[in-house]
Amino acid sequence: MISVGIVGGTGYTGVELLRLLVSHPEVELKLVTSRSEAGMPVADMFPNLRGFTDVCFSEPDVKTLGACDVVFFATPNGTAMKMVAELLAQGTRVIDLAADFRLKDSAEWEKWYGMKHACEDILAEAVYGLPEINRAAIRKAKVVANPGCYPTAVGLGFLPLIENGLIDDQHLIADAKSGVSGAGRGANVAALLCEASESFKPYAVEGHRHLPEIRQTLGVAAGHSVGLTFVPHLVPMIRGIEASLYAVLKKTDVDLHALYTERYKNEPFVDVLPKGVMPETRSVRGANFCRISVFQPQGSDVVVVASVIDNLVKGAAGQAIQNMNIMFQLEETAGLDRPALLP
Amino acid sequence: MISVGIVGGTGYTGVELLRLLVSHPEVELKLVTSRSEAGMPVADMFPNLRGFTDVCFSEPDVKTLGACDVVFFATPNGTAMKMVAELLAQGTRVIDLAADFRLKDSAEWEKWYGMKHACEDILAEAVYGLPEINRAAIRKAKVVANPGCYPTAVGLGFLPLIENGLIDDQHLIADAKSGVSGAGRGANVAALLCEASESFKPYAVEGHRHLPEIRQTLGVAAGHSVGLTFVPHLVPMIRGIEASLYAVLKKTDVDLHALYTERYKNEPFVDVLPKGVMPETRSVRGANFCRISVFQPQGSDVVVVASVIDNLVKGAAGQAIQNMNIMFQLEETAGLDRPALLP
Amino acid sequence: MISVGIVGGTGYTGVELLRLLVSHPEVELKLVTSRSEAGMPVADMFPNLRGFTDVCFSEPDVKTLGACDVVFFATPNGTAMKMVAELLAQGTRVIDLAADFRLKDSAEWEKWYGMKHACEDILAEAVYGLPEINRAAIRKAKVVANPGCYPTAVGLGFLPLIENGLIDDQHLIADAKSGVSGAGRGANVAALLCEASESFKPYAVEGHRHLPEIRQTLGVAAGHSVGLTFVPHLVPMIRGIEASLYAVLKKTDVDLHALYTERYKNEPFVDVLPKGVMPETRSVRGANFCRISVFQPQGSDVVVVASVIDNLVKGAAGQAIQNMNIMFQLEETAGLDRPALLP
Amino acid sequence: MISVGIVGGTGYTGVELLRLLVSHPEVELKLVTSRSEAGMPVADMFPNLRGFTDVCFSEPDVKTLGACDVVFFATPNGTAMKMVAELLAQGTRVIDLAADFRLKDSAEWEKWYGMKHACEDILAEAVYGLPEINRAAIRKAKVVANPGCYPTAVGLGFLPLIENGLIDDQHLIADAKSGVSGAGRGANVAALLCEASESFKPYAVEGHRHLPEIRQTLGVAAGHSVGLTFVPHLVPMIRGIEASLYAVLKKTDVDLHALYTERYKNEPFVDVLPKGVMPETRSVRGANFCRISVFQPQGSDVVVVASVIDNLVKGAAGQAIQNMNIMFQLEETAGLDRPALLP
Repeated sequence: MISVGIVGGTGYTGVELLRLLVSHPEVELKLVTSRSEAGMPVADMFPNLRGFTDVCFSEPDVKTLGACDVVFFATPNGTAMKMVAELLAQGTRVIDLAADFRLKDSAEWEKWYGMKHACEDILAEAVYGLPEINRAAIRKAKVVANPGCYPTAVGLGFLPLIENGLIDDQHLIADAKSGVSGAGRGANVAALLCEASESFKPYAVEGHRHLPEIRQTLGVAAGHSVGLTFVPHLVPMIRGIEASLYAVLKKTDVDLHALYTERYKNEPFVDVLPKGVMPETRSVRGANFCRISVFQPQGSDVVVVASVIDNLVKGAAGQAIQNMNIMFQLEETAGLDRPALLP
Repeated sequence: MISVGIVGGTGYTGVELLRLLVSHPEVELKLVTSRSEAGMPVADMFPNLRGFTDVCFSEPDVKTLGACDVVFFATPNGTAMKMVAELLAQGTRVIDLAADFRLKDSAEWEKWYGMKHACEDILAEAVYGLPEINRAAIRKAKVVANPGCYPTAVGLGFLPLIENGLIDDQHLIADAKSGVSGAGRGANVAALLCEASESFKPYAVEGHRHLPEIRQTLGVAAGHSVGLTFVPHLVPMIRGIEASLYAVLKKTDVDLHALYTERYKNEPFVDVLPKGVMPETRSVRGANFCRISVFQPQGSDVVVVASVIDNLVKGAAGQAIQNMNIMFQLEETAGLDRPALLP
Repeated sequence: MISVGIVGGTGYTGVELLRLLVSHPEVELKLVTSRSEAGMPVADMFPNLRGFTDVCFSEPDVKTLGACDVVFFATPNGTAMKMVAELLAQGTRVIDLAADFRLKDSAEWEKWYGMKHACEDILAEAVYGLPEINRAAIRKAKVVANPGCYPTAVGLGFLPLIENGLIDDQHLIADAKSGVSGAGRGANVAALLCEASESFKPYAVEGHRHLPEIRQTLGVAAGHSVGLTFVPHLVPMIRGIEASLYAVLKKTDVDLHALYTERYKNEPFVDVLPKGVMPETRSVRGANFCRISVFQPQGSDVVVVASVIDNLVKGAAGQAIQNMNIMFQLEETAGLDRPALLP
Repeated sequence: MISVGIVGGTGYTGVELLRLLVSHPEVELKLVTSRSEAGMPVADMFPNLRGFTDVCFSEPDVKTLGACDVVFFATPNGTAMKMVAELLAQGTRVIDLAADFRLKDSAEWEKWYGMKHACEDILAEAVYGLPEINRAAIRKAKVVANPGCYPTAVGLGFLPLIENGLIDDQHLIADAKSGVSGAGRGANVAALLCEASESFKPYAVEGHRHLPEIRQTLGVAAGHSVGLTFVPHLVPMIRGIEASLYAVLKKTDVDLHALYTERYKNEPFVDVLPKGVMPETRSVRGANFCRISVFQPQGSDVVVVASVIDNLVKGAAGQAIQNMNIMFQLEETAGLDRPALLP
């Protein structure tokens, strides 16, 4: 059994980690911290957990956390980087669901996140936790930077094209759409039901923090920097991301469906759909899958890829557990082997 | 391993049975029938099942079904009653998720369902599958009539009061609200997103088919017939039923919270909430629980009970599996031991 | 032209007043105050108003407000009562959409609203602005207390029965359901899309502030105090209230549909539906109507009334404008004569 | 007063025409036809219209229709083209909200719509009813082809760039998203609340009927044929279209915001938002506006345009009334001068 701690369990990634971990066959949940809610049973805040755990939120304490095999950070950006060194010193491995270790270039990180990085040395050895490109490194990682939700959907969608040099990678378009849970559980007017339901809008067109992260992933795959226009949109639903990706093909006679199928044939959580079938976000609601379709509409030289995930699962908590499974040599699908909730 | 067949797998109770059964540790899913979709992989219709089952819809055939240990009917009313005799003859047990065996009084059944009953003898020995009142009989049942969704929520909510004779049971009020999946997966205008979302309405005020079923359950518990006003409403959401129940107390000094807690203390799927906490349907989304609160607002002589279930789980497929577990001496919670999806 | 000022225009009742007033043929909108947003064009906060008004939020100033013919308060409870005296002194009439002048019994008010009333003398002469019972008094009122949303739906639903003494008025049941806009535009977690959508729940069962207001309205109509159980519920939609009302009839041979039709035949905004038709909230979305049905299910001695309004229109801003029209001898339907938005 | 007839009033564009026309100051609604519902009051089907019209659905009859000044067709494709000649012969003008007269190239039309065109001569003189490009011709038109919803949003978004030759018009990308009302009021499983809510998906990637229509509009503006990838998506909401448009700029130093502002400065229903402000569909819910933003993210050579409309208003019924106003020399905004419903 792996002993697990969670720092910051009151948000949506926190409760999703809890939902998945209480059913994980190899996990013992040791503690969940929350400064503001210390003492409250987690099941009082999240009634879906009634009967599944008696754990109460506790004050974060690095000693107690250090007694765990692995600690998940489901905290705001800038929290994990201040505690990781002490945890590593106690032999505890860390999976950060926030952004502290996602960008290898600390100057870039500081520009987008507006603060000084607290541990550049650890950043250097942290592994970007996208199993589909970094599985071997994740296995040995001390610190895993769990990818952002948009970067997971966009990255998995573009990778086969980029890796094979099939497209003009200086004018990539990623038109991405997310459910409102991506905005978190904080009290903010824009995420109220009365503001966000029955409406649809783009946001952050001038620059979203996931832009440099996607560029990094695709740049590594390409072997050079790529040009990307990334426009996120807010969808009136709770969970789900769909990314529609566009690029101009360098040649138009490649069997793209075969290419995608081959690329992901051994991936337990990437599902290339049959030709002509479009993905829908509900097909992954509550599940760790990414489902992908690839098209060349009307036989033109523009390729269209559609990629869907649940932003809280493959885009956050589920992928974090997938990373944990890899790090601890468990079955990679352990605790994640359930179908999505449909309808 | 229990071998299982499903008749009629293309509706919402069908796909929910499939979702739960493919993860059930003691079940081998043998076949799913659908006359209209024979030959199609079930995962083509329900993409959440991709990777979990290769079963294709097949033509219903009583011989093949009879090779299963148990057959679930997720069919329209009037289907199961025509096939059950042949299945029983082959030693197969049956759980009917439709209404064919729910009303003991066949005349009453014929009045509400508008057709002649096809097997009154089997009706006589069928067991009403509400484990919280009939567990022992379910264990030995050949045919289980899986309760309706409203009757489950309303029945569990009123039972402790009725069993203890605490209320005027001639003027019971059940104001119930259901998500749209209760209307099924058929193409009908009233269930379109554009008709049913962003709106709320009562329906079937003059008489809903679940009314006699609820009256039967409560009448058995009371030892005499009860008077019930039952008004269902349509809620703009997919899953969930909430029933607000009202009755006048005969005496106002009983500790109702203690009464409910005691009544359900050994029930794995009925959760009496702490004093002062209201249930919300999302706390049971995708899970087999019924969560209940009981109140005496302002200390008056009117008792208010609030009861929530997921209409597709404890109100249909989940309860059917709970019944199967009981019938086959499995752990009663097998395959049903996961938290609800929240948010 | 009537010159109009609004105090507190940043909430949902504020923007709804603005939406209706900018199209009102007899109104000149003079100013909208907001301490926090002073200087911002209202159309920057509410983009639906772009092109309809150039007004900017301004600091509240009693002199400027006093130059208006009428001032609407769309403020939190406790604000209007501190400013009304000065406005009346300048000859300005006041319509308060908050609760400051709704309860005639100031002790009761102080109990439910947790503060001392600031002007009991004005409270004594304020008129409760439900036109269907107080039209004549509203015409001459200096201060109108605009009714709460639930009290409007429940009051109009019960009135014909109460006024005619047809029911046991000591055990009235009002099971009411509201869209989330009733919770206001403040940043609070419970009203987030991810908390409130795809779920349904009762709340405030122990006592909601609208309870004494409804009791007051019904008590006046009955000529004595009534007994009422009032349970509000939260519906996953933006706008709309449906109230299902239950009572035991003293006699069961009255033609209730005829009674309701007669009671409301001259009311421009109360629509008694044809026999057998249920109301749905979308039929009044954005419109000032209350639509009502009355039933005696199965011919029993329990009467069921279903009443729907748009909580922001007939339950707030629309009714306030209806009151203004009456106060200033305008056509009562002026500015309110548009159909609901459906779908 | 203009006398108006509607052919086919039982769908969403039909009820939206009715909603807007019953409040139009210069319109007398003469008749609404529906073969299937003849005899039923329209307000029985659409309860928002109760109190606004007593019109009943009637059998379509070309003589009665020919007595109107103008007839709107809110029918399936292929209906109007069979009746228009007879109406024109009686001096009645026609506005077709379906697609029969949208494509000038009848061969192209027959390819996409799968039927033979019934009146190519009338097609030749029909005017494409996008006022922002064809106002003068609309004024004199006998037959107006009311544009599709996507073509309106995409066309208005791209026009300033195309007209000024600023972009590579061979690789245009239009990623468009529509509420479910775009699918109509027919009973189909894909539009059920339980299928379409809480999910997001692309559809018709291989080719949507609006593709040739958009290409036609943009091609005329460009003076040559353009290359366009058009991917529509389904949003879990009732009303609204957002189109995010992408193209590579030929030069990056043009003030695009000024260009758009200038292009649409005299257009009553096109609103170019202030710099940095994103449009949201709710800002046009129920209203005839198109709101547009233009961006050059990070100063790159890719331009991003976001354009929103209400698909039932500026994308259908509202634009049809705008066309009627132009045809009959009425104030262009008559009957359309109300703010959107927000929230």
